[in-house]
Amino acid sequence: MRITALAGGVGAAKFLSGLVRVMPGDDITIVVNTGDDFRWLGLYICPDLDTVTYTLAGLANSLTGWGVRDESFRCLERLRILGCETWFALGDLDLATHIYRTHQLRSGRSLTEITASLSSQNGLSVRILPMTDSYVPTMVHTDEGILGFQDYFVHKRCMPQVQRLSFEGIENASAAPGVLAAIENADAVVLCPSNPLASIAPILAVPGIRPALVATSATILAISPIVSGQAIKGPAASMMRQLGHEATAAGVARLYRDLIDIFVLDRQDEDLQKPIKDLGLKVYSANTIMNDMDSKTALAKAVLEMLP
Amino acid sequence: MRITALAGGVGAAKFLSGLVRVMPGDDITIVVNTGDDFRWLGLYICPDLDTVTYTLAGLANSLTGWGVRDESFRCLERLRILGCETWFALGDLDLATHIYRTHQLRSGRSLTEITASLSSQNGLSVRILPMTDSYVPTMVHTDEGILGFQDYFVHKRCMPQVQRLSFEGIENASAAPGVLAAIENADAVVLCPSNPLASIAPILAVPGIRPALVATSATILAISPIVSGQAIKGPAASMMRQLGHEATAAGVARLYRDLIDIFVLDRQDEDLQKPIKDLGLKVYSANTIMNDMDSKTALAKAVLEMLP
Repeated sequence: MRITALAGGVGAAKFLSGLVRVMPGDDITIVVNTGDDFRWLGLYICPDLDTVTYTLAGLANSLTGWGVRDESFRCLERLRILGCETWFALGDLDLATHIYRTHQLRSGRSLTEITASLSSQNGLSVRILPMTDSYVPTMVHTDEGILGFQDYFVHKRCMPQVQRLSFEGIENASAAPGVLAAIENADAVVLCPSNPLASIAPILAVPGIRPALVATSATILAISPIVSGQAIKGPAASMMRQLGHEATAAGVARLYRDLIDIFVLDRQDEDLQKPIKDLGLKVYSANTIMNDMDSKTALAKAVLEMLP
Repeated sequence: MRITALAGGVGAAKFLSGLVRVMPGDDITIVVNTGDDFRWLGLYICPDLDTVTYTLAGLANSLTGWGVRDESFRCLERLRILGCETWFALGDLDLATHIYRTHQLRSGRSLTEITASLSSQNGLSVRILPMTDSYVPTMVHTDEGILGFQDYFVHKRCMPQVQRLSFEGIENASAAPGVLAAIENADAVVLCPSNPLASIAPILAVPGIRPALVATSATILAISPIVSGQAIKGPAASMMRQLGHEATAAGVARLYRDLIDIFVLDRQDEDLQKPIKDLGLKVYSANTIMNDMDSKTALAKAVLEMLP
């Protein structure tokens, strides 16, 4: 069973850390959103790629969900004294990743190659791919102006009202090497429990990826990131509401209906099974709230059992 | 009394930290060697500028002479895990300076402007100038090939035999804004106790600086970095021997004889007073070994008294 996962940050990383414990890592390809990527103080930062890599490597801070555990912020404090903006909490350990990546990019390596190096240097056997090697920043159009995603998400704490999202330059981007083949050759594609509008939509917007999902013979399964009308983490629910979608598992299913075969919702949302089935989807319920490794592996096992 | 100092790293910084305690910082301009500058992992590092700034700001590690006190190396350890060369001991606090400088340079500011910002953000009132805004790396030609200065000095621990030094591109460089005026308008110019060949010579090789020293009405005084035939720190003595100079205060005086009026040697080298006087220089002796703040301020006071 070869699985290709489409992933955002924290929610996806939790699910994937269960998945790598119930099947061989070699059979997993993870295609990660890079719309959140940004340049800060000259460093090239890929929050979702790093969250997935750190989490699978056992390095993630399990309290915050982002960053590295046992982190320190000594460099950041000095940067603050030097007059730099420091709203992005760049830790001393995390910084090594960004220095490495930025230097390698400037030396001419692709983000795909660098991501593979970071993955193997962190001891991982799964294949982690950026959705594209191009810089296609997600811009959040709000009542306070057009903001980069991290500016909206971290700096402004998701407070501005979202009017629309745009993925800058995506029409000229192409999928990173290996992405389309990983979708074509998979037995199953899993849309991880990530923000459908800010994490999964950018991946689907990369030219070639949506057609590959339509064409593949793989079963396509999505896990709802929304439980009881709330996002487990991040702005998915409020963003859906502000953009005119129902902020429920059913609202998520509607966004994915043309692409997927199976939709997984949380047990708390059993009452939404019927409306989602009415969209023509198979629906399963599971415990999708992953607070510990047992619940992560349980969800991964349950998902494997749902696949044909 | 306006003083302009020509400075390398540790030895100069010690002397200058005494000088700023015995006269107003506003009257001091420090022109710092940038031949040691190098790019490492995409960061632009200026060891001598940073040593001078950190030392005057009271941030320097007094045990090592370089770097920041209470430093940690967590980022560097992660960089090592990621497969990077880590022979340059880049600390978490120090890193902030390099990230800031590199980003500012890429944003189009000059090294002169950035150095002024770093100086003021560190609370200094002295004016610190790079010798030039151009990148003019000192190359050490050795029996093991041509090495960048930090490669020779830190990585290879000064072990290769030095055949000659070259200052790449210096013929096309110009003095940083303010340098020539600071020499012209000074009452005294002090050549700090720094490596004459690797720290002071690059400054003198910047087009315009030597002529400005010849033309200025300022008294020019040099302090020997060599005491009893040994450098207090660094490779000055062995480098002088390998390049055919006498590794004594008299050897240093001979290198500077065409430029300077006054030469200061250590009390341990009183016997060298006569041969240096014979070069046509005024000679004074002082305690030039600066192990604590008292000895630093004592040397600075002594130097001020030697000046007309």
